[in-house]
Amino acid sequence: MTSISLGQLADRFGLHLDGAPETRLSGVGTLERASADQLSFFANSKYRAALSGTQAGAVLIRAGERELCPSAALLTPDPYLTFAKIAAWWHPKVRPEPGVHATAAIAAGAEIAASASIGAFCVVAASARIHAGAVLGPHCIVGSDCVVGADAELVARVTLVKRVRLGARVIVHPGAVLGSDGFGLAKEHGRWIKVPQLGGVLVGDDCEIGANTTIDCGALGDTVLAEDVRIDNLVQIAHNVEIGAHSAMAGCVGIAGSARIGKNVLVAGASGIAGHLKVADGTTVLAMSMVTSDIHEPGAYGSGVPLMDQRSWQRNMARLRNLDKLVGRVANLEKRSETDGKHE
Amino acid sequence: MTSISLGQLADRFGLHLDGAPETRLSGVGTLERASADQLSFFANSKYRAALSGTQAGAVLIRAGERELCPSAALLTPDPYLTFAKIAAWWHPKVRPEPGVHATAAIAAGAEIAASASIGAFCVVAASARIHAGAVLGPHCIVGSDCVVGADAELVARVTLVKRVRLGARVIVHPGAVLGSDGFGLAKEHGRWIKVPQLGGVLVGDDCEIGANTTIDCGALGDTVLAEDVRIDNLVQIAHNVEIGAHSAMAGCVGIAGSARIGKNVLVAGASGIAGHLKVADGTTVLAMSMVTSDIHEPGAYGSGVPLMDQRSWQRNMARLRNLDKLVGRVANLEKRSETDGKHE
Amino acid sequence: MTSISLGQLADRFGLHLDGAPETRLSGVGTLERASADQLSFFANSKYRAALSGTQAGAVLIRAGERELCPSAALLTPDPYLTFAKIAAWWHPKVRPEPGVHATAAIAAGAEIAASASIGAFCVVAASARIHAGAVLGPHCIVGSDCVVGADAELVARVTLVKRVRLGARVIVHPGAVLGSDGFGLAKEHGRWIKVPQLGGVLVGDDCEIGANTTIDCGALGDTVLAEDVRIDNLVQIAHNVEIGAHSAMAGCVGIAGSARIGKNVLVAGASGIAGHLKVADGTTVLAMSMVTSDIHEPGAYGSGVPLMDQRSWQRNMARLRNLDKLVGRVANLEKRSETDGKHE
Repeated sequence: MTSISLGQLADRFGLHLDGAPETRLSGVGTLERASADQLSFFANSKYRAALSGTQAGAVLIRAGERELCPSAALLTPDPYLTFAKIAAWWHPKVRPEPGVHATAAIAAGAEIAASASIGAFCVVAASARIHAGAVLGPHCIVGSDCVVGADAELVARVTLVKRVRLGARVIVHPGAVLGSDGFGLAKEHGRWIKVPQLGGVLVGDDCEIGANTTIDCGALGDTVLAEDVRIDNLVQIAHNVEIGAHSAMAGCVGIAGSARIGKNVLVAGASGIAGHLKVADGTTVLAMSMVTSDIHEPGAYGSGVPLMDQRSWQRNMARLRNLDKLVGRVANLEKRSETDGKHE
Repeated sequence: MTSISLGQLADRFGLHLDGAPETRLSGVGTLERASADQLSFFANSKYRAALSGTQAGAVLIRAGERELCPSAALLTPDPYLTFAKIAAWWHPKVRPEPGVHATAAIAAGAEIAASASIGAFCVVAASARIHAGAVLGPHCIVGSDCVVGADAELVARVTLVKRVRLGARVIVHPGAVLGSDGFGLAKEHGRWIKVPQLGGVLVGDDCEIGANTTIDCGALGDTVLAEDVRIDNLVQIAHNVEIGAHSAMAGCVGIAGSARIGKNVLVAGASGIAGHLKVADGTTVLAMSMVTSDIHEPGAYGSGVPLMDQRSWQRNMARLRNLDKLVGRVANLEKRSETDGKHE
Repeated sequence: MTSISLGQLADRFGLHLDGAPETRLSGVGTLERASADQLSFFANSKYRAALSGTQAGAVLIRAGERELCPSAALLTPDPYLTFAKIAAWWHPKVRPEPGVHATAAIAAGAEIAASASIGAFCVVAASARIHAGAVLGPHCIVGSDCVVGADAELVARVTLVKRVRLGARVIVHPGAVLGSDGFGLAKEHGRWIKVPQLGGVLVGDDCEIGANTTIDCGALGDTVLAEDVRIDNLVQIAHNVEIGAHSAMAGCVGIAGSARIGKNVLVAGASGIAGHLKVADGTTVLAMSMVTSDIHEPGAYGSGVPLMDQRSWQRNMARLRNLDKLVGRVANLEKRSETDGKHE
């Protein structure tokens, strides 16, 4: 890892240095564990105690919080963002050598750019195209009519089932499945009839898709992620969902069929969005919340229930089951109180 | 794709045509995007605006809604079901050629029907049987004592760990794991002791299992899906669960051990069903709901909390934590009001 | 399967036998399905009816419940634990032969113990180490700087992406992904910037990780599971989570980044734990609950909402959205009642 002086680091990333410019750093670390030759950052007030005891050689910090920091400081309005850039510069991604691994099963007709890298035991269908600079780690499957965009990366064991087109620089983590059949069923004489799933999945440039996440193909037309959409692990995205640019979905989120999620939408962990509805640009859905109707106005919304000790939880939940009756009792009291008032 | 006239289509599927019989169609599309040579359908009133502006050559629609449709109409009491059948006829499933891919690792002793198709890098154990017409896409693992029924399809990268028997025409989507050990643990002297998981998984004819879904083997006896059970993506089905015929579970549902789910049960997305309980035939569980005791009567049940703007959510949830006390306050008021009434 | 007399079984496991010692057993079964030559157990009062009708040759049961049992009885204070031990003795794990399958892709430099077993189509990176007695089933990927501990078992299709170190006797079930990038994003000019994920995953001895579960690598430092942690299927563990020894997480649980979970913590199915918080040793989180702040005291906590019939659910939930206003109405009534009291 490259060693660099604090002064050089400040220059390179346009930061104000409050400390000795000749101090040399050779890596990054957490406030709790960084050593004197490592850089850390302070972005979350929960870590104030860790900051005050840090052994880091320097800390990225907001100017207004500089006095909380016992070490040299690099001042930045967004320590986490600046950290991301410095860490990426320090740890540049190592791309594997171009070429197709000897064990990969590439069907005749598949178009694979010379600069792409195809890992062990990959399977590429005849009608698939892998663009320049793309990387497929081991055990990836690229099915029929799939396209992997330039410089995209399928980390390992990614399955693109059919009609999946990934834009440039898309990253897909292991175990993700894109282009599986949507859950389309009709019923006839008490038995399910499978509705053919004929569409595809369209993933815009710079999207990232987490481990073991599933994105079904459209029933008709495509399931669509616009550019720069970020999806965490174990997220389910059903057929014909559309997600606008720069939106992000945290782990364990589920989105039902044909939901239309706007741009710059944030959905926190384990929330669910019902089918056939619209979520406005700029909406934030808090954790473990349920969205069952359109959201027209940007803002934050939630429905998660806060934790209680078991006894309180049992009592309150028993009451919740009779809340409607309680409202009736209050209304009765109000009526009586009203009447009593008139009596006087 | 076969082109067909509207008149022929009406004849073939027994529909009443209101439009020019000589119009030719060559495929299906959504109300919003279908062109004049495509067929669409209207089954959800949310798409009334799309219907009124559709460019589709014809629309499958209920007789009573015919006047909403600007194009030719094919009348049917269940447009979605009829669409499913026409789409399946237009897009017949293409089965791969029978045979075993050169890269597959088939253990000596495995019984594979001559008409079955085994994809690249599949692994089939010595004691496994693959019946006639079954299709294994690439990267499937069929472990010991597993059976793949006639005409079943493991789309790709499916893992049948052990003692998994799939009926005829079962479809399993990529990433699904069947026959993994159930979560059976006992504690001794503060440490976990693993309880051997000795059963299997029995999947009836015509079931469908979604991408990255997990179905554990039974601890003793089998985990059982009866015929025609449909499971969406990222569903967890624990050991010894039994699910009756024609039931369906949407994405992200979790079912704990030894739950017995009846026939024709519908469980909407992200709901959870606790262990060792019974759910009556014909029950519907709404989205994001928690089932923790037996359901004896068919009907619809829910416990999901509706979305609120953040401020309302915070206030109401703070109140929910004191709901039991509020009921006490109301009871006090009632007592006092009672007493006051008597005073008069 | 070995046949054994009841007397021998009682001797071997230190149990008190109430029944004929010469009766021979040759396996285990459920109360409902065991035959006269099988052993069953009674540990859950829900199965009292099954117990009274059991055909099992003998039943493991607590002394105080012996009279409920129609068959011979083996008395034990913890029937489930004793069952686990007897079943494990009866069904010893069969380890595959040591050696590397001919189809595995082992990079030059990888250290693989002679007693380890590497299955078909496994991929092992140059910097990986596989210790003595470890078993990799088919289709496992062991990435750079990963270590598989002695006698550990990757059942099949497990992906260790990078910097994952598994302790001794760890079991990982199919589809699990460890060491995938954490969901670290910063925003700049309206676009996401990926934060490099530089840490690893440290899994202690005797941990077990379920099918299709995901455990991300740390951003800086490691995601850590201490010894004897048990994780069920489809669980999401984000970057830098730490879980103490002997804790267990049931299916579909999600734990957000940097949460610190204590020892002996139990988290029931589908619960969620927010990031950057602490959960005390000995805490139990009930099913489908949301933890969004520190838990300082051990005990049981919940926030799951109980199921209601659809009509009650709709009414009560409509009221919940106005609970804060209801509290205001009650406060008004109290004020008026107070005033009325003073009037008298």
